[in-house]
Amino acid sequence: MVTLSDIQAARQRIRHYVRHTPIITTANTLTSAPEKLHLKLENLQVAGSFKSRGAFNTLLQLDDAARARGVVAASGGNHGVALAYASKQLGISATIFLPESVLEDRVNRIGVWGAQVIQAGSAWDDAHTAGLAYAAEHGMTYVHPFDADATIAGQGTVGLELLEDVPDMDIVLIAIGGGGLMAGMGLAIKSLKPNVRVIGIEPVGAASMKAAVSTGHVVTLPQVRTIADTLSPRAVSDLTLSLTRQCADELVLVEDIAMIDAMRWLWRESNQLVEPAGAAVIAALQTGAVDIAGFKHPVALICGGNASAGCVFSEYEAAARSAPAR
Amino acid sequence: MVTLSDIQAARQRIRHYVRHTPIITTANTLTSAPEKLHLKLENLQVAGSFKSRGAFNTLLQLDDAARARGVVAASGGNHGVALAYASKQLGISATIFLPESVLEDRVNRIGVWGAQVIQAGSAWDDAHTAGLAYAAEHGMTYVHPFDADATIAGQGTVGLELLEDVPDMDIVLIAIGGGGLMAGMGLAIKSLKPNVRVIGIEPVGAASMKAAVSTGHVVTLPQVRTIADTLSPRAVSDLTLSLTRQCADELVLVEDIAMIDAMRWLWRESNQLVEPAGAAVIAALQTGAVDIAGFKHPVALICGGNASAGCVFSEYEAAARSAPAR
Repeated sequence: MVTLSDIQAARQRIRHYVRHTPIITTANTLTSAPEKLHLKLENLQVAGSFKSRGAFNTLLQLDDAARARGVVAASGGNHGVALAYASKQLGISATIFLPESVLEDRVNRIGVWGAQVIQAGSAWDDAHTAGLAYAAEHGMTYVHPFDADATIAGQGTVGLELLEDVPDMDIVLIAIGGGGLMAGMGLAIKSLKPNVRVIGIEPVGAASMKAAVSTGHVVTLPQVRTIADTLSPRAVSDLTLSLTRQCADELVLVEDIAMIDAMRWLWRESNQLVEPAGAAVIAALQTGAVDIAGFKHPVALICGGNASAGCVFSEYEAAARSAPAR
Repeated sequence: MVTLSDIQAARQRIRHYVRHTPIITTANTLTSAPEKLHLKLENLQVAGSFKSRGAFNTLLQLDDAARARGVVAASGGNHGVALAYASKQLGISATIFLPESVLEDRVNRIGVWGAQVIQAGSAWDDAHTAGLAYAAEHGMTYVHPFDADATIAGQGTVGLELLEDVPDMDIVLIAIGGGGLMAGMGLAIKSLKPNVRVIGIEPVGAASMKAAVSTGHVVTLPQVRTIADTLSPRAVSDLTLSLTRQCADELVLVEDIAMIDAMRWLWRESNQLVEPAGAAVIAALQTGAVDIAGFKHPVALICGGNASAGCVFSEYEAAARSAPAR
């Protein structure tokens, strides 16, 4: 079982490879109180999300033989981008399985870092099954996006940075997909400052952690439906369920359309363009699903920024071609 | 004439209103050397650009009577957004003149902060003439985007932060529109660390500072043509010319299309979506217009992030409506 000291060791291990991401303070125009929000910008992490922390923590513990054989993962998107990036930095070959439903932008981002992409099945869980089989067949190491101690310990390093940078933090909102980030951050925060309230946010259409916590065991949803592809496994794991039960004080759900409204808010208020998952925590505030009245130093963890933004550049290219003299 | 102590005083004056913006270090995949670039992210400044510094520094020095009468400005975009934002925070009414060519996004961003928008003329200079007349007619204070000591002193505070946060900085790239940022930052940096090389970047289609430095006096270009609207006045001012001659070691030009390529690079490498002006410094590296070989701690000042990005949200809204269950 992953422990606080695993997270502390992970921080030392990965420190030359990942960014200590900045926090900005922004006016809280979402709710009536308090006046300010702290945004922890993991969209500014290398490869655009917190997933790089777990990826580096895993790869840096492989022996030379395993490194030489290469790694495999299945991803809703960001774990694949992060593992491709980390593999390139460390000279390891990587094969990433993605569901067929994934946005083209995800495929391109992984390709930039030189990893092989294979698309399989309609949801993450299908790509996961295919990736496990591929790894076994080729003798490669499968790097799980959330159900692994090294992954969780890496993600937990976000919590250590937060405790240093916002020492008065009294509530933190964290998005949940498979639950690796919640597990790691929750463990770090509750171990060191148990009075911080920890809130998990899931999409209404992929509430696999809520289902698991409600029933007390991992539940496989019959289907998922959300644009927040990185938050959409059909099932969490025993490990992430156990740590979430231990560390999360509350789980709340948000609709896709609320995440898009929240993306607009983040763009307007702080010029950060993020993917839907990255804005889920803001959606929880904006819709009133989470009440921060009575808290003084709330933190929203912006988990990832790999939005599909190609249309912006196309529009500027068209403008450059037609710009009149003035 | 603005001095280092004006900049230091500005920093104290505005510190509770603006952000000490973060610096991220990113792999230099633009040129052959050095390995790392420091990006100073003024796109993370309140209202999305460094312009908020000069705006607050000006407004906070107005007396009560001037505050009550309100302020006027003409802007290529970001000065207007910043002045609208600062005016709202301080309870001052603001009227912003914009050229008719401005992107709708600029108008909307100013509207968010409750300022009145009036569009006049085809370039910034036309809006400026109209704004000056309006201010005189209504007895309001005109806040110049670059030709004013308080504006320049405010922008110079970026330089003070940089000197603290990257003490080994040996070269810095700064975009030039009217030259207020170059004037303020150049003064701060050359006063305190004269060996830092200071490079100014202008669009090929609006090279009013290059024309002024080449001839030794302010030149009004017959026309400007660039998508970098915030870098496109037809003429700089005596004040910004004088400080630029004193502080800039070199001026280089970049094409619009190179700025868009640079926007793509910033998005891919650091998940920062910025406007063309904000990427001009990256374009100067990517095209080889500026050579940083021989420097060890280069800084690129990302001046603003108010890109037009509405298409991204529209695409996600369409995806949310049609997302299939998986």
